[in-house]
Amino acid sequence: MVVSTINDSSPLSFSNDTTIPASTFSSNSFVNVEKGDPVAFGPYWEKLRDECMIEIKGDEWMSYFGDANNLCWYMVPPMRDAILRLHNAVGNVVTKDKFLVLGTGSSQLYQALLYALSPSEPSDRPINVVAATPYYSEYKDATDILQSRLFQWIGDAALYDKDEPYIELVTSPNNPDGTLRAPVVNSGAEGKVIYDLAYYWPQYTPITYEVDHDVMLFTFSKCTGHAGSRIGWAFVKDIEVAKKMIRFVHLNSIGVSKESQIRAAKMIEVICDGYQNLKSTKSDHLFFDYGKRLMKERWEKFKGAIEQSKIFTLTKYPTSYCHFNKDLSEQYPAFAWLKCMEGIENGESYLEKLKIRTRGGERFGVDAKYVRVSMIGTNDEFIELCTRLSNAKRE
Amino acid sequence: MVVSTINDSSPLSFSNDTTIPASTFSSNSFVNVEKGDPVAFGPYWEKLRDECMIEIKGDEWMSYFGDANNLCWYMVPPMRDAILRLHNAVGNVVTKDKFLVLGTGSSQLYQALLYALSPSEPSDRPINVVAATPYYSEYKDATDILQSRLFQWIGDAALYDKDEPYIELVTSPNNPDGTLRAPVVNSGAEGKVIYDLAYYWPQYTPITYEVDHDVMLFTFSKCTGHAGSRIGWAFVKDIEVAKKMIRFVHLNSIGVSKESQIRAAKMIEVICDGYQNLKSTKSDHLFFDYGKRLMKERWEKFKGAIEQSKIFTLTKYPTSYCHFNKDLSEQYPAFAWLKCMEGIENGESYLEKLKIRTRGGERFGVDAKYVRVSMIGTNDEFIELCTRLSNAKRE
Repeated sequence: MVVSTINDSSPLSFSNDTTIPASTFSSNSFVNVEKGDPVAFGPYWEKLRDECMIEIKGDEWMSYFGDANNLCWYMVPPMRDAILRLHNAVGNVVTKDKFLVLGTGSSQLYQALLYALSPSEPSDRPINVVAATPYYSEYKDATDILQSRLFQWIGDAALYDKDEPYIELVTSPNNPDGTLRAPVVNSGAEGKVIYDLAYYWPQYTPITYEVDHDVMLFTFSKCTGHAGSRIGWAFVKDIEVAKKMIRFVHLNSIGVSKESQIRAAKMIEVICDGYQNLKSTKSDHLFFDYGKRLMKERWEKFKGAIEQSKIFTLTKYPTSYCHFNKDLSEQYPAFAWLKCMEGIENGESYLEKLKIRTRGGERFGVDAKYVRVSMIGTNDEFIELCTRLSNAKRE
Repeated sequence: MVVSTINDSSPLSFSNDTTIPASTFSSNSFVNVEKGDPVAFGPYWEKLRDECMIEIKGDEWMSYFGDANNLCWYMVPPMRDAILRLHNAVGNVVTKDKFLVLGTGSSQLYQALLYALSPSEPSDRPINVVAATPYYSEYKDATDILQSRLFQWIGDAALYDKDEPYIELVTSPNNPDGTLRAPVVNSGAEGKVIYDLAYYWPQYTPITYEVDHDVMLFTFSKCTGHAGSRIGWAFVKDIEVAKKMIRFVHLNSIGVSKESQIRAAKMIEVICDGYQNLKSTKSDHLFFDYGKRLMKERWEKFKGAIEQSKIFTLTKYPTSYCHFNKDLSEQYPAFAWLKCMEGIENGESYLEKLKIRTRGGERFGVDAKYVRVSMIGTNDEFIELCTRLSNAKRE
């Protein structure tokens, strides 16, 4: 594949060949692929912009309450219905016999869960929070920001050998490296597991089975790309855990934006309507089909650029059968996780010289040879990223 | 005033006499005036429902970022502009030389402020958080929920005599009792003050001057009644405090709903347009004029009911000149704060027997003779509240 000809390709269109338009990126600017702003799916929603439009009138959704009859009293019924419908369509999680708790993004629910899973009685020993490296770079700071006596960040789950209760975070597919994960703590102590399933959607990974755990987290941001809405949700089995989470959200922000709920519900309805009316919907109009083609195309171009550069190696992913897409497929993670070849000690600094801004391995609990690169930024950034990587020569 | 004839009055209309419509409340149901859901202003917004409508298309506001050039990177420019325009129109706060920090309601910003005003270095002594009684019932739990080592709830500011740094909360007008407040701590130790100005709007209290403090909190909920949007904001003088608050909001929820920001900006624009085009706007169409008339009418009816019942006494409020309304006016707080007459020890229990659900004094740090009653609930609830109170006879 000749990456340098990307700039000649035609503008993105709703065809089976999700071609990538020309970049207008200035060669003097930094390519910022450090963050995970999921704007890659913007062009899809632009095509459906009117179909997805919401209207909210002056007197609508004024109350703190969304549904006083629901345990999660701030969640509006259309939001609840849309989330359940989406999981039913995708088949990625068992929702039966679970409590659905809505949050201001999954970040808020992460903290709600730490609160809910910690012992209620004050203790001198906070519960230990661990995750296998490389782990999501925000977990540590989000855990320790208020220096709680209830919980504390410890670090690598694989090294955990204390005989004390713990909470293990399992992000699968993982951020930053896209790998599929299971708990790794090897300790006789009592452990609770939070499954962060932010990336368990068909555009990123084959849906191999319906996940069924006690505590599972999802975010709207990485599902459809609407990060600005700050909508996340959790499925939890234990009503006492759900109640404590809802109490946290109450004290933290008195619920979740009703406008965001209405918007998220609408976007999800449009996605699900597409799959429900399969016969009348062109497959290139189906969100996850589009998303997967886009991610696949990006990954192919990116791999070509990495091979040409001979500076980095990439994580290898297995091929699995996707029950949603009904095909054998690789993974196309939202982030690429690069390891420098021998002789380069700091990937982030190295790429900084190429005017590529990334997030270095140390933020993820591993060494600086590793670096995370967003695959879900704007098209311009992505093309420029590939061009700069493929033109890079070993110093 | 004969409160029992309320039911005969005509439906609420946009006239100078903001009459209160008949209640359809079932006599078997509880009247719930325990919470502060500000739905009283709903009928106003219903009249302007189309004028205030927002539309959001499928591809709009997808990013985490609202304005990458602003310190508060998740705030969209229309939100910032609307907040500044509103304060400029009302004249209730000095916004010059302050940093504007947006939050998911003022609840989130309260916690962001505790984090930002606490010492950055870990210490064995959390900073002490105090507020004069009666104080907002959620402060204590919101402060202590995560048992932070950075800060801890102490209680009554008037009793604070430790020689240790502290944060004093000054809510003015106060929730629950509507009084105007200033700091009361009498200690030589270093103190920081958070001014919670949630109710410093012309429908509740005369705007006597432009408040100018280092840290001031506002909420959209109590300003326009749109509690479901979860929008709050703070003006802070010190950039380091602002930066720490923004870091908290980042880790807590990665910003604030863009949909809510667009909605709040629109509502505020409609309010400000009304006052800007004064000549062409009927005064009964002006939000704060309407709001004040509604609150005044409710308070007059409520006082009549309380007088008739001979069970409670009410807080007395001074009359002041309002620079916004350009008249002498009483206060019409969002909550009524009742004290039981001699012989009744528990106001909440007493009212529970009348099928009126309230929040008792102990939640506010005082004794059970006191009780808080929402004045900003639905019209039906309010009428039924007055009817039940005026019919109540001393046992």
